[in-house]
Amino acid sequence: MPNWLLPEYIADVLPSEARKIEELRRLMLDNFRLYGYELVMPPMLEYVESLMTGAGADTDLRTFKLVDQISGRMLGLRADMTTQVARIDAHLLNRATVTRLCYAGSVLHTRPSGLHATREPFQIGAEIYGHAGLEADAEIQELALGSLALAGFTEVRLDLTHVGVLHAILEQDAAAKKDYDAIVQLLRAKDVPGLQQQTAKYNETTRAALLALPSLYGDVDVLKRAREALPALPGITHALAELAALAASAIGRADVAIDLADLRGYQYESGAMFALYVPGLPNAVARGGRYDHVGEAFGRARPATGFSLDLRELARLLPTAERKHSIRAPWGNAPELKEKIAELRKAGEVVIQSLPGHSNEQDEFECDRALVLDESGSNWILKNLG
Amino acid sequence: MPNWLLPEYIADVLPSEARKIEELRRLMLDNFRLYGYELVMPPMLEYVESLMTGAGADTDLRTFKLVDQISGRMLGLRADMTTQVARIDAHLLNRATVTRLCYAGSVLHTRPSGLHATREPFQIGAEIYGHAGLEADAEIQELALGSLALAGFTEVRLDLTHVGVLHAILEQDAAAKKDYDAIVQLLRAKDVPGLQQQTAKYNETTRAALLALPSLYGDVDVLKRAREALPALPGITHALAELAALAASAIGRADVAIDLADLRGYQYESGAMFALYVPGLPNAVARGGRYDHVGEAFGRARPATGFSLDLRELARLLPTAERKHSIRAPWGNAPELKEKIAELRKAGEVVIQSLPGHSNEQDEFECDRALVLDESGSNWILKNLG
Repeated sequence: MPNWLLPEYIADVLPSEARKIEELRRLMLDNFRLYGYELVMPPMLEYVESLMTGAGADTDLRTFKLVDQISGRMLGLRADMTTQVARIDAHLLNRATVTRLCYAGSVLHTRPSGLHATREPFQIGAEIYGHAGLEADAEIQELALGSLALAGFTEVRLDLTHVGVLHAILEQDAAAKKDYDAIVQLLRAKDVPGLQQQTAKYNETTRAALLALPSLYGDVDVLKRAREALPALPGITHALAELAALAASAIGRADVAIDLADLRGYQYESGAMFALYVPGLPNAVARGGRYDHVGEAFGRARPATGFSLDLRELARLLPTAERKHSIRAPWGNAPELKEKIAELRKAGEVVIQSLPGHSNEQDEFECDRALVLDESGSNWILKNLG
Repeated sequence: MPNWLLPEYIADVLPSEARKIEELRRLMLDNFRLYGYELVMPPMLEYVESLMTGAGADTDLRTFKLVDQISGRMLGLRADMTTQVARIDAHLLNRATVTRLCYAGSVLHTRPSGLHATREPFQIGAEIYGHAGLEADAEIQELALGSLALAGFTEVRLDLTHVGVLHAILEQDAAAKKDYDAIVQLLRAKDVPGLQQQTAKYNETTRAALLALPSLYGDVDVLKRAREALPALPGITHALAELAALAASAIGRADVAIDLADLRGYQYESGAMFALYVPGLPNAVARGGRYDHVGEAFGRARPATGFSLDLRELARLLPTAERKHSIRAPWGNAPELKEKIAELRKAGEVVIQSLPGHSNEQDEFECDRALVLDESGSNWILKNLG
């Protein structure tokens, strides 16, 4: 096997793609900052126990593990940065006040999440800690929609759901509550026959409510249907009101869809949750929501809500950036030439000095101008290239 | 052991430090771009064989290894990005022309390189492929010095050396050439007694030349002494001329020192090499030089020269960035308020909306102004906070 082959689902990012990712990364981080989010950089490697804290079994399977030669303990490569940032909020910053954090970096997965997925997504995201109210969820949703707008997406679909609905139904029925994981699996798969079998032994209210969930999807009118079909429990009323408010705040920025049985892709969420879709990609490009229990797992219960997206996948959907026009300059040590080049670069121009013997080469940068001496032979001037 | 402890020599980067790293990262990448360098992003994980191609035994020991569940083969976490970028030049871009590439990202080491080192440096660097002449080395040296200048360092020392000197000496003596590794070790350690023992069996010219190397260090006058002390071999004359040219091109930008026995920290270099030092840190902050043999190891011999530095270490030497002044705004859905906030953010102001119940909190951002309603109750205005 040649020594330059890469592992499956692992790839280099070449210049045109890297440029897009870098530009989006800056646009999004700068926007987060304008909202008061502070950047943190959690490590690539942690003890496996830390990485798994508050995370589900999915994360365990996705995490590469290796032995630390210093401690002899097992380390994991981060497969997700959300729990890392929750750990930073809980133990490093340890503030009592509202804390807004953002992050950007590679995460690694033992297996790709799909046929065209990478095992090294570039995760970027933002989180608010310390506020349990819907205002924090609304700000996160606004940031997520704003991130896609910055990337140039004009047609965005926002899918909303709320785990509070399921929690409220199960809270009424100890027998059903014990089957939480099985029920979530069936709802995720919208497996109605399976759900009928599973719910046969529950009381009639629970059964009816659970069986209603898979059909409660569509536009915002679903919320009205849900109020009629589901029991009037305080938890359900609260959850439906939150969804109505979040749907209203997205008007004009996204097409809103509600799906009360959609529990895919969420591992530690505890309230309202959302997924964003754009044309050209069947999977969600961004996911977010409330996950108040993660901090708790680190010994410090703090309300938390946030979102993240894979910049690598997003960049692939965008057109290749135009070649940046640039200036070709000859090689030389003459002070006038060096000064002229420094001046042009200071003004933001890309100036490529041709190395001796390579003056007619063209690469990724399209040189549309050349720095040449004028007829007097004493002034450096720009000349347009044909 | 608490689940929020991190492994030794691994740390989170908190907001004030992360901000410095992010700013330096942008300044340096933008400067590389102005010189025509294109960004690439090699993967965190590769097959061990690829990562070790063209790299030395040091790299092998520093590289974390783990098993790929898909192929059953051994993977390594990159400990250095230089060979990865050489692989990209050799096999992915595969251009015949001069190629300028740059990169930035985390690398991981099984053990720290020193007592205060991290096991997760943030490596940033630039490379030119396809030009064997000194012009490429000069451009790389200029970029490295420029990077430190951008970071605000005004006192920089440039240490120059050239492996061509040693190569030329050994080329004359088959017996000595076989002991290459042992000789390099002794020269790195400046172990003169050891060197006397090692060279006892070599012919007198080789012996005298090798024994002269450890004392050939100091300012640029060393080059004159070297011309007198070393045999007049073409390889030595060429190397000393290259060092003289590189030293001259750094005048006014750094204090130049020459050390012909300094072979520390270089693994695959083949010509002129440099290290940059700044006050406050005993180790080099940046290293660079020519390493024409790496591409060859990937099956495509291309001249190559480049440099890299650890942005994390560099940022630690710099003063904490000033708190960014920002504006506190109340929470609310009123269109006038939202418009005013959007307008301020568009102008580059950080506007933090206070979440209900948290209006008097202060965090990393120092709010020096507040967005409030004027007396008429209809216009949002900025008010200075005491």
